[in-house]
Amino acid sequence: MENVWENCLSAVAKNTRPSPVREILKVITQEGMISFAGGMPAPEVFPVEEFYEGASVLRDKGRTVLQYGITEGDPDLRNFLASWSAKRMGRTAAADEIILTTGSQQAIDLIAWSLIDPGDVIITEDPTYLAALSAFSNHGATFESVPMDSDGMITDELPALINKIRSSGRKPKLIYTVVNFQNPSGVCLSVERRKRLAEISSDMGVPVFEDDPYGYLRYDGEHLPSVYSFDPEGAVIYAGSFSKILSPATRIGWIIGNKRIIRQLTVFKQSTDICSSPITHSLAYEYCRKGYLDSHLPKILKNYAVKRDAMQKSFETHLYPLGVKWVKPAGGFFFWLDFGKNADTRKLAVKALEKKVAFIPAEPFCVNTENAGRYGRFNFSYSDPETIEKGAVRLAETIKDTGGY
Amino acid sequence: MENVWENCLSAVAKNTRPSPVREILKVITQEGMISFAGGMPAPEVFPVEEFYEGASVLRDKGRTVLQYGITEGDPDLRNFLASWSAKRMGRTAAADEIILTTGSQQAIDLIAWSLIDPGDVIITEDPTYLAALSAFSNHGATFESVPMDSDGMITDELPALINKIRSSGRKPKLIYTVVNFQNPSGVCLSVERRKRLAEISSDMGVPVFEDDPYGYLRYDGEHLPSVYSFDPEGAVIYAGSFSKILSPATRIGWIIGNKRIIRQLTVFKQSTDICSSPITHSLAYEYCRKGYLDSHLPKILKNYAVKRDAMQKSFETHLYPLGVKWVKPAGGFFFWLDFGKNADTRKLAVKALEKKVAFIPAEPFCVNTENAGRYGRFNFSYSDPETIEKGAVRLAETIKDTGGY
Repeated sequence: MENVWENCLSAVAKNTRPSPVREILKVITQEGMISFAGGMPAPEVFPVEEFYEGASVLRDKGRTVLQYGITEGDPDLRNFLASWSAKRMGRTAAADEIILTTGSQQAIDLIAWSLIDPGDVIITEDPTYLAALSAFSNHGATFESVPMDSDGMITDELPALINKIRSSGRKPKLIYTVVNFQNPSGVCLSVERRKRLAEISSDMGVPVFEDDPYGYLRYDGEHLPSVYSFDPEGAVIYAGSFSKILSPATRIGWIIGNKRIIRQLTVFKQSTDICSSPITHSLAYEYCRKGYLDSHLPKILKNYAVKRDAMQKSFETHLYPLGVKWVKPAGGFFFWLDFGKNADTRKLAVKALEKKVAFIPAEPFCVNTENAGRYGRFNFSYSDPETIEKGAVRLAETIKDTGGY
Repeated sequence: MENVWENCLSAVAKNTRPSPVREILKVITQEGMISFAGGMPAPEVFPVEEFYEGASVLRDKGRTVLQYGITEGDPDLRNFLASWSAKRMGRTAAADEIILTTGSQQAIDLIAWSLIDPGDVIITEDPTYLAALSAFSNHGATFESVPMDSDGMITDELPALINKIRSSGRKPKLIYTVVNFQNPSGVCLSVERRKRLAEISSDMGVPVFEDDPYGYLRYDGEHLPSVYSFDPEGAVIYAGSFSKILSPATRIGWIIGNKRIIRQLTVFKQSTDICSSPITHSLAYEYCRKGYLDSHLPKILKNYAVKRDAMQKSFETHLYPLGVKWVKPAGGFFFWLDFGKNADTRKLAVKALEKKVAFIPAEPFCVNTENAGRYGRFNFSYSDPETIEKGAVRLAETIKDTGGY
């Protein structure tokens, strides 16, 4: 008898439905499937020994480590991250300018709690991070998007868009951007546009959420300063994460920003999960304080750069001749492929599954889905070069069989 | 310049304000303060050695343990908990009837996501768990309450209340109850009332959330069957927690219930924090599979029973002669004191702080605050017997000085 629950569901619960991504993820465990669909770190780059070294803290400081922690997160780890990220941020964050979250996904939820009334507008790049759309949407957000090119969000379009939203009586509450090696498109926002974004945010009174889970995974070129570092007015908050540079199982993200908003996020964190785990905070701090975060990173970068290069080569060999186009990503986890204006990547993805290769079609990442059929996201962090080559061959066969739809 | 954020806050953010509890918690770290205000486990009962024993899993299964986990939580730990709690639940939960949450606080948030539209009604005991009121309230819930006596919620009042809510055009979406050693009142729901609650829930189509963080902390008498075990229709969900029987730092709670609602909670967990930590799940599972959950529990019970008895004795000696009344709790963490109909415990709590003893006045726990001035919550898990005695003396002095207000 499931009616008791069915009859009591909230409107937002009634609107949730399995995403096309979940449907694909269901079949990728099939025997022989090659998956470019996920977004997981490679298990072989986890610093297993170095992380385990810190486990003695569970014994040596057990009575503290096993207790409730403060909502803002472990002070030692917060101090470490405030200093460690200073280079990228322009300065060291003060103690009341940083909070640790249960992964950076929780950062999105807490920001939404703090800012969104039903109908308020979030401005995103198009395409954008799928799970941010879900989380903001649960809070009643509506979306307006700004197109991207190979330098990221076309920031010059922002002022007119903000004015348009305001003239229509709606409130633009946040500009959400993944500035480095964006999920799904793989591109970086240029330095000029970072400056411009900070200016527009401050001038027009619309805060920016600079989500940066991939920022440290750069395989070519130099790191770019954060949008936060160009922010004169405290209107930009920055979110980082251990998921891709240490381990997603730590469930540790961090937000740096103006103390007023950090305080607000803390209040909402109290009612959503009280505090994050002092166990994972202490283990992560032991790892960080010994310098492993920096000393291990080159090993991660090397592993992923090889895979990125392998995917570039395999796609050049097998897909480029079929008219598929892309910009080679300088970091992160993803290739974003353009199959041309007549393509239908939802259908292509289904056909590809029959050939035992999985990817995610663009649609669930898009606010404006008009051209979504052209694009698809391909992950390279999880497969070895031989598998990537095989997968590219299977993709090419799928395109040939279907005409790319 | 904090206006960018101030101007963009959501309505719910604008309504949050520091609770009286937080104000008290701020001063309890003062030199010489005796605190009965908190609700934390005693650090000396943490099974530090036994928990640390399992740390080798971080090395031996590092590549799995450091990866993302599934949203529902570690399958081994879920299986263990489904079996381990079967005695209390009436049967072993199936794999799709249990989800692990980031502490049981997240269980409350996920339930709220699943059920609450703004204005919907949650029915609680009065008084009830403070942080449940905050979490439900953030989701736009309104509250109706049922009074309690020494057998817990007076369930016979439920049908009329549910009908009254419905006649007024509002929707009663959930009955929220802490059935064992309730926070704050310390009482247990009687077996007869558990049966009646399950019947009413099923007959009237209002689900029950049986929140049970203290259930295993029984110092006298026999354990009572869960409300869930009397539930013929799947309308009751049960939430347990490791916070008081292992460690709050694991941030592990579990919910057992009908698979339809478990699936819905999973969907919302995806967008709030993706998954909980496979690190803490694996460490907790290592602890559990070796039998430590059962073998260590008597040590915890012994420690707390001594403190409970000390508080009973000290309060009998110093407070009872002043007209203060209470029911001796058979388990859990709290005494709930009745200072009489002319008392004002908010003022008394402030005066007590001047005497260096802290407790929490009833008001923030109450839906109906009419009689809240009579009551206060006193924690015994965190202080040793000598400290409890000293605190009781200071309380008695405060009452004498103020006339109890």
